[in-house]
Amino acid sequence: MKYEMPEINLKALFLGDKGENVDLFKELLLKMVDEHVGWRQNYMPQDLPVITPQDRSSKDFQETADHMRSVFNVLSSKLRTHSLPWHSAGRFWGHMNSETLMPAIIAYTAAMLWNGNNVAYESSPGTSQMEEEVGHEFAALMSYKKGESWGHICADGSIANIEGLWYARNMKSLPLAIKEVAPEFVEGKSEWELLNMSTEEILEILDQIPEQIDEIKTHSARSGKNLQKLGKWLIPQTKHYSWLKAADIIGVGLDCVEQIDVDDNYRMDITKLEEKIRDLAADQIPVLGVVGVIGTTEEGQVDRIDKMVELREKLAKEGIYFYLHVDAAYGGYARSIFLDENNEFIEWDQIDEVYAKHNIFTEKCEWLTRDVYESFKAMSQAETITIDPHKMGYIPYSAGGIVIKDIRMRDVISYFATYVFEKGADIPALLGAYILEGSKAGATAAAVWTAHKVLPLNVTGYGKLIGASIEGAYRFYDFLSNKEFKVGDKTIHVYPLTKPDFNMVDYVFNEEGNTDLEKMNKLNHDFFDQASYVKGGLCNNEFITSHTDFATPDYGNSPLPFVKSLGFSEGEWDREGKVTVLRACALSPYAHDKEVFEEYAVKLEKAIQCKLKTIYNETK
Amino acid sequence: MKYEMPEINLKALFLGDKGENVDLFKELLLKMVDEHVGWRQNYMPQDLPVITPQDRSSKDFQETADHMRSVFNVLSSKLRTHSLPWHSAGRFWGHMNSETLMPAIIAYTAAMLWNGNNVAYESSPGTSQMEEEVGHEFAALMSYKKGESWGHICADGSIANIEGLWYARNMKSLPLAIKEVAPEFVEGKSEWELLNMSTEEILEILDQIPEQIDEIKTHSARSGKNLQKLGKWLIPQTKHYSWLKAADIIGVGLDCVEQIDVDDNYRMDITKLEEKIRDLAADQIPVLGVVGVIGTTEEGQVDRIDKMVELREKLAKEGIYFYLHVDAAYGGYARSIFLDENNEFIEWDQIDEVYAKHNIFTEKCEWLTRDVYESFKAMSQAETITIDPHKMGYIPYSAGGIVIKDIRMRDVISYFATYVFEKGADIPALLGAYILEGSKAGATAAAVWTAHKVLPLNVTGYGKLIGASIEGAYRFYDFLSNKEFKVGDKTIHVYPLTKPDFNMVDYVFNEEGNTDLEKMNKLNHDFFDQASYVKGGLCNNEFITSHTDFATPDYGNSPLPFVKSLGFSEGEWDREGKVTVLRACALSPYAHDKEVFEEYAVKLEKAIQCKLKTIYNETK
Repeated sequence: MKYEMPEINLKALFLGDKGENVDLFKELLLKMVDEHVGWRQNYMPQDLPVITPQDRSSKDFQETADHMRSVFNVLSSKLRTHSLPWHSAGRFWGHMNSETLMPAIIAYTAAMLWNGNNVAYESSPGTSQMEEEVGHEFAALMSYKKGESWGHICADGSIANIEGLWYARNMKSLPLAIKEVAPEFVEGKSEWELLNMSTEEILEILDQIPEQIDEIKTHSARSGKNLQKLGKWLIPQTKHYSWLKAADIIGVGLDCVEQIDVDDNYRMDITKLEEKIRDLAADQIPVLGVVGVIGTTEEGQVDRIDKMVELREKLAKEGIYFYLHVDAAYGGYARSIFLDENNEFIEWDQIDEVYAKHNIFTEKCEWLTRDVYESFKAMSQAETITIDPHKMGYIPYSAGGIVIKDIRMRDVISYFATYVFEKGADIPALLGAYILEGSKAGATAAAVWTAHKVLPLNVTGYGKLIGASIEGAYRFYDFLSNKEFKVGDKTIHVYPLTKPDFNMVDYVFNEEGNTDLEKMNKLNHDFFDQASYVKGGLCNNEFITSHTDFATPDYGNSPLPFVKSLGFSEGEWDREGKVTVLRACALSPYAHDKEVFEEYAVKLEKAIQCKLKTIYNETK
Repeated sequence: MKYEMPEINLKALFLGDKGENVDLFKELLLKMVDEHVGWRQNYMPQDLPVITPQDRSSKDFQETADHMRSVFNVLSSKLRTHSLPWHSAGRFWGHMNSETLMPAIIAYTAAMLWNGNNVAYESSPGTSQMEEEVGHEFAALMSYKKGESWGHICADGSIANIEGLWYARNMKSLPLAIKEVAPEFVEGKSEWELLNMSTEEILEILDQIPEQIDEIKTHSARSGKNLQKLGKWLIPQTKHYSWLKAADIIGVGLDCVEQIDVDDNYRMDITKLEEKIRDLAADQIPVLGVVGVIGTTEEGQVDRIDKMVELREKLAKEGIYFYLHVDAAYGGYARSIFLDENNEFIEWDQIDEVYAKHNIFTEKCEWLTRDVYESFKAMSQAETITIDPHKMGYIPYSAGGIVIKDIRMRDVISYFATYVFEKGADIPALLGAYILEGSKAGATAAAVWTAHKVLPLNVTGYGKLIGASIEGAYRFYDFLSNKEFKVGDKTIHVYPLTKPDFNMVDYVFNEEGNTDLEKMNKLNHDFFDQASYVKGGLCNNEFITSHTDFATPDYGNSPLPFVKSLGFSEGEWDREGKVTVLRACALSPYAHDKEVFEEYAVKLEKAIQCKLKTIYNETK
């Protein structure tokens, strides 16, 4: 591509909330269909079409086509009746979804016509190359070393997290296996020491004995042995439920999972993490790994990865080591807002200048703190990172991803099958032997690859889009803060949960003077019902949001400071044991615009007012 | 849909090997795009478009659009340069891929515009309903009882197999958990007896103590306990490598996997299976489960599921029980050729009549044997079945699936998360809590749903398409059988591996008089190189096939009878330890047609001749 990368106008990259870009969409879609058909015609042009004009005129052909047309009428009706208006520029403030990138949709469709299966290079050379390229782009996004790191696309974040835990489990078990197969390399080490070797140390031993790797793997956790020796998997209270599922599936079990309390900002409490690790160490229980979250599912908060890395370095001096996995399913792409056009992590003191140069925000945005900056920066120290293109990559479902810091780890979990394995290629000939899944759509790789080519993973591309979503979130956050509504003689206030670390805004409604937590929870649950499919409808709903419960079994007393700040007593919290929170993922690529937002703000205020009125009338 | 289902003409359902149906394709594609855009415009029509005409005329918009156009030029070029011509009506006889159903491609694209995420009903009501419907269609396809069974879509067959093993592991561990939590329900049972309880018995106990289920689950294998007590996982030698990966991931470990030899037809040897189970029982080692394969990956063969079920019934009388999982990733959809228009399994003595009525084959086909018939029939007795829409469902990658016989098993592996769980719905409010994956494309469900509506899963729909592929395979099989080629003074014969149980044809070339197995293997490997991307190119390759090695570490001596039948000594086999086989999945929806096939047969013969000549010239 021999042209200057232009200043990106995000409005050219989406179909548009009213389908404004439908002509551009069809132009590119039909171009790709035509070029595909041209290719079919020109593969062996001497072969005549097998579907003849006579076939196409036949009665059963026509009837079959009409049958198919009828099915499409049903499909279209169902989709239009039962889908959510994510695309809205300013009315959808709910689940983690939005318009997706036009280039990704079209690339997916185009590549689907070729139906590559990226399980094996042989059956999908083009899209396998694209996936490999995407993997290296992910690695660059994380500031992993070029040539020493790797990544790939997977079905979704749950699968990536399972794979991360699989890596951690098998890595952690290797020293025990080395002791069985090549004991001279770990001579004199106690079991405790073996279970606290760093990933780096382990890989360096394996480098010295390549011919024994297969046997060592045979003795590793993949054998089924030693799973219960590997220690605890530490996750924040804010964890996604899939982490429990992952521990179940991987066989280390739920009993090995321990939750670490979060602080007032819903970030893992690093002091508590250190205490926990030391307590375990005192009982000679190792730590299988620690999960830091970049963009918690319910709050969008950012764990202090930098503090986790610091802690790891400190503990290493005392002979304690833990594997670090970052679950950045949600926030992974946001690291692009920290990379300059050369993919270098921007210095703290230059960041405003760079943002100004690349028009990252339209106005001054209160978002970025040093904490968040340092957390993102430290991601480069994690062994594995989950990143979902179908979240902040604005790629259609489903597209997950995982990145590994040290490509040598790949061999620790790999398998082979002869029919798809050819030696000598840079790109895995059989990707399925290195990852959790088998068959996978080449189309997903094409969609992600195309999106990355249109929007590079730095401030010139995705950074702008991420910036737009954050700015939109802050507009919504500012809109809600100190807002009040009158319904009859009641005054209802809105309270955001916390200053957002990213682009999610959690908030609650509460009636003035109410000290009954159950009542507040009911109000917010009722509001959700009105602002969702449950009672509010979809196609005719003027404001849509989502909700969540922070309940003691998961969150312990972490929500207490917030609950108390609203005027509830500790006793109320103990009695109710949960707080129902409304939850807005602000992904719209349009709502950062001041004029757009202000236009919608008036409509949102009315819609909220109307919903509150309905609720109070219903409860009368 | 108020119209008679027509006699399906398969030619109306594919884009066509030369894009013959491109007009119909575009008609439906654009209809769906237009109807989607109409929906966007009519959600809150009072909201004005945010992308204005002025925006679209601006310099940076135009430059961004041109940048995107340039990226699409690169994408199109890459796809056309590095993709495989699956679509060819008669030249592609390789990997398990082909043209996919036009309705599935268009439905996927359409639904992608709405971007539903089937992880939760709330975020995808329309496509979640479709997935639920598809699950019940899968269950009906397997003759599972209506209302008591369930199924869902997943990423691929590997994920479905992992999920099947996850089910088996957690089910098998439940009696030990019941003994801990509610011992009165398993009073007097020894550990051996606990580990040999049937799935039915276990579920009936759970039915009696619903309030204790959560605690029992906490004590089950999900805790991480008892994984090494659950016994052996028995798979056929022909297994897909992903079974090893599955045992690794699920934590039972590779050490628990044992391979059972296959017979001359590459089906699991049931006598050996019985011996193995009895040997294990003698050592008080239980069987975690047995995997039967419907459509082995390398041979397309069909394990005797009926004999496995028979054996299970026999052993049950001796207090031995095993879980049965059928890996029908490949062959699952083929069960539709055994179901009449009312989805009843057709009686053996009526099958020819039904096939004649529904034009299943164009000519008498030698395919169906009683063995194969009974194997398919007995699938209804398995606990879980893997079925891949992206294989014989002719759905684009990636779309896998799993079906469970007893819906109560679903609760054995389920999790919950508050933010997506609403009580009272028939359809899981949070599908992600019941399955291995989390986020998943609603578009996949729309694609499979639409395909099933166009082609019902019985002889009126998919049965015809499956029949066409089998008939095509038999034409290729007959074409190869007794074929010989002359290159210089050499005569090269072709030998099919076995009579196909399904639509895969494995075959080898061998030089007349050659008794050197290594030489034959080299010939076939060289042939693969010529008939694939390796040396033969893609867009200009006149005949494409795939290959596999049957080597002793996987296959033991099972290939020996075939190898001997070609005139090699047992010593040769022992020396070389493998046989390289060419492998043709016959999925073309066109090659069953006699005229079409015969036209291509002439071309194939020339192309093969030409490739052999190249090989012999190169080796000179």
